[in-house]
Amino acid sequence: MTASSILVVGSVAYDDVETPFGKVEHVLGGSTSYFTAAASLYAPVRVVSVIGSDMPLSTFDFLRERGVDLRGLQVAEGKTFRWGGRYDYDLNATDTLFTELNVYAGFHPDLPEGYADSDFIFCANIHPVLQQEVLQQCRRPRLSMMDTMNLWIETERKALVETMGMVDMVSLNESEARMFAGTSSVVTAARRILALGPKAVLLKKGENGAVMFTETGFFVAPAYPLEEVRDPTGAGDSFAGGFMGYLAQHHGEITPSVLHRAMIHGCAVASFTVEEFSLDRLRRLTRAEVEQRYRDFRRFTHFEGEFVE
Amino acid sequence: MTASSILVVGSVAYDDVETPFGKVEHVLGGSTSYFTAAASLYAPVRVVSVIGSDMPLSTFDFLRERGVDLRGLQVAEGKTFRWGGRYDYDLNATDTLFTELNVYAGFHPDLPEGYADSDFIFCANIHPVLQQEVLQQCRRPRLSMMDTMNLWIETERKALVETMGMVDMVSLNESEARMFAGTSSVVTAARRILALGPKAVLLKKGENGAVMFTETGFFVAPAYPLEEVRDPTGAGDSFAGGFMGYLAQHHGEITPSVLHRAMIHGCAVASFTVEEFSLDRLRRLTRAEVEQRYRDFRRFTHFEGEFVE
Repeated sequence: MTASSILVVGSVAYDDVETPFGKVEHVLGGSTSYFTAAASLYAPVRVVSVIGSDMPLSTFDFLRERGVDLRGLQVAEGKTFRWGGRYDYDLNATDTLFTELNVYAGFHPDLPEGYADSDFIFCANIHPVLQQEVLQQCRRPRLSMMDTMNLWIETERKALVETMGMVDMVSLNESEARMFAGTSSVVTAARRILALGPKAVLLKKGENGAVMFTETGFFVAPAYPLEEVRDPTGAGDSFAGGFMGYLAQHHGEITPSVLHRAMIHGCAVASFTVEEFSLDRLRRLTRAEVEQRYRDFRRFTHFEGEFVE
Repeated sequence: MTASSILVVGSVAYDDVETPFGKVEHVLGGSTSYFTAAASLYAPVRVVSVIGSDMPLSTFDFLRERGVDLRGLQVAEGKTFRWGGRYDYDLNATDTLFTELNVYAGFHPDLPEGYADSDFIFCANIHPVLQQEVLQQCRRPRLSMMDTMNLWIETERKALVETMGMVDMVSLNESEARMFAGTSSVVTAARRILALGPKAVLLKKGENGAVMFTETGFFVAPAYPLEEVRDPTGAGDSFAGGFMGYLAQHHGEITPSVLHRAMIHGCAVASFTVEEFSLDRLRRLTRAEVEQRYRDFRRFTHFEGEFVE
C-alpha cells in the first residue's frame, strides 16, 4: 500500500541568513522547499511554486530523488524570490532584512494534470487569495492546512479569514495568533480561529515546540532540546512537512491520537532542520534518524505512575 | 506511613504587583510563602524566614491548618521585606519596580530543634551564603535543592558556585541559566551547571514549562495551557513546592521516573498559582483539583503508536 499524495503551494527562495553562529548568502530557502524536503521523507509530494531563470533546475535533484513531482514548478524569466533575515541570540525572533518578490509578483498557482486529486494540501504562507485559488481547484482532499504570516494578518485580514474558513487546519506562529486575535492568551486566540471554521489550530512556538487546539482539547509537543540551533529558518515549514507527511503515510482514519503522533513527527524533523543552515541537514536526513528522535520524544515527555504513588 | 519532612528557607514578603489583568498592593508574597503553600498540599513543611512586626501572624493561619511548622519564622522589629513588580502582556518578563530588604537585611537562618533532620531541603533564591548556612546546619537530607536569581549571578558568583556544589539539584529560570553560563544554548548552560556538582538542573521556562537535565538525559514538562494568566508571580516557587512535595510524599527510591512525575506535579500546582493574584488560588487549592490537572497532563503530552503505523 502506498502513501497518499501531498500537494504544497508556496515559495521557493534564495535566502541570505545571519545568526550568531554564521552567515550564508544566496542559499536555497522558501516555505515550499523546507516543507517538501521534510514531507518527501514520508510520502509523494507535488510542488506548485515559481522560480526565476537564475535558479538551476538541478537545485531540486535531491527532491527528485525522493520522488517529488515538480511539474507544477513554474520557471519565469527573471530573478527568484529573495529573502534576507537575521536572528539574534534569542532565536525565536526573526528580523527580516529584505524581501524581493521578483518572479513571485505575478505568480498564480496552476495545477498540472492530476494535482487536483491530491489527498493532502498544504498552503504555505503565501497571499490568502492565492491560497484560495489552490483550494478552489482541488477536489475533496482528505485534509487541507494553511499557514500564514504577520504581513497578511496586517494587510489582508478579510481574505485571510475567508481562507481560514475553507481549510481543515490552520498553522501559525504563537505571536501571529496573538496578533490575529488581539489577545495575549494563546488559548483564547486559538478559540477565536477555531470559531472561523477550521477543525484544528496548530500554534508553532519556536524553540518551545507546538500546541494543537481542537474543539475538545489540546496537545502539547515540545521542541527537541538541542545543544546548538544554528539557523531556525524553515523550522515551521519542516514541522508542517513532517506533520502532514506522517498523515499521508498513515493508513486509516485520522483520529486525535494520529494527529498527536503527527505533531511529534513534525517536531522531530524540524529539530534537524535548525541544526544547520538552509536545507543542509534536511538534504541528507534519513528516516532512521527521524525515527530515533521520535523515540527520544517518548522518553522525555512520557511519565509513568499515578497521582499518588 | 507519613510523608517525609521538608525544610524551606527564603523570603516572606509584601508584594505590589501589576499585570495587564489588574493590580494588587501589600499582598502576601515571597518565595517561601508560595513554596510552602504548594508543598504543604503533600507533606509537612518547616519554614525558616523572617517577617517584620507589621505582618500579623494570622497571615499564616491557612498554612498552619495544613500542618506547616512555623517555629522557624522569626519576627523582627520593623517592616517586612517588600517587592514590587510589573508584567507586560509577555508575562514571561518581570519588571522589578522596587525591592525593600527591611528586616531581611540582618537575617540569618536559625534552625529550631528538629529542623536539621529534615529529609528534603529547599533553599529559595536568597543570598548564596545564607543558603550555605542552612545546608551546613542540616544532616544528611535525602535531597537538597537551591534556587537562585539574576542578582546573585551578577554580584555573588563565587559564593553561588560554591552553593551549587553543595546541593543535589539547582533550579533556575532559563534566562538566568543562560546568563550564568554565558551561552544562548540552555542545553550547554545546564551541562555547565551539572559540571559544578549537582545531579540535576531544573530549568524553569515560565509559560513554556520546565526542563530537567541530568548527566544521562532530560525530561520536558510543558506548562498547562491556560485561558488566562492573571499573575505569574510565584509560579517558579510553587513549581518547586509541588515538585518537592511529591518527592517527600513518595515512598521509595527517587528514580528518574519519580523525578519526572514530580515535575508534572510542580507544573500542575503552578498552573493554579498564576490563575489569580498573590496566593489567592493556592489558599483554597485542593489535592483533588491538582490530581485532575495531573491527569490532564498525561492526556495532552502522551502519544501512542510507533514511528510507522
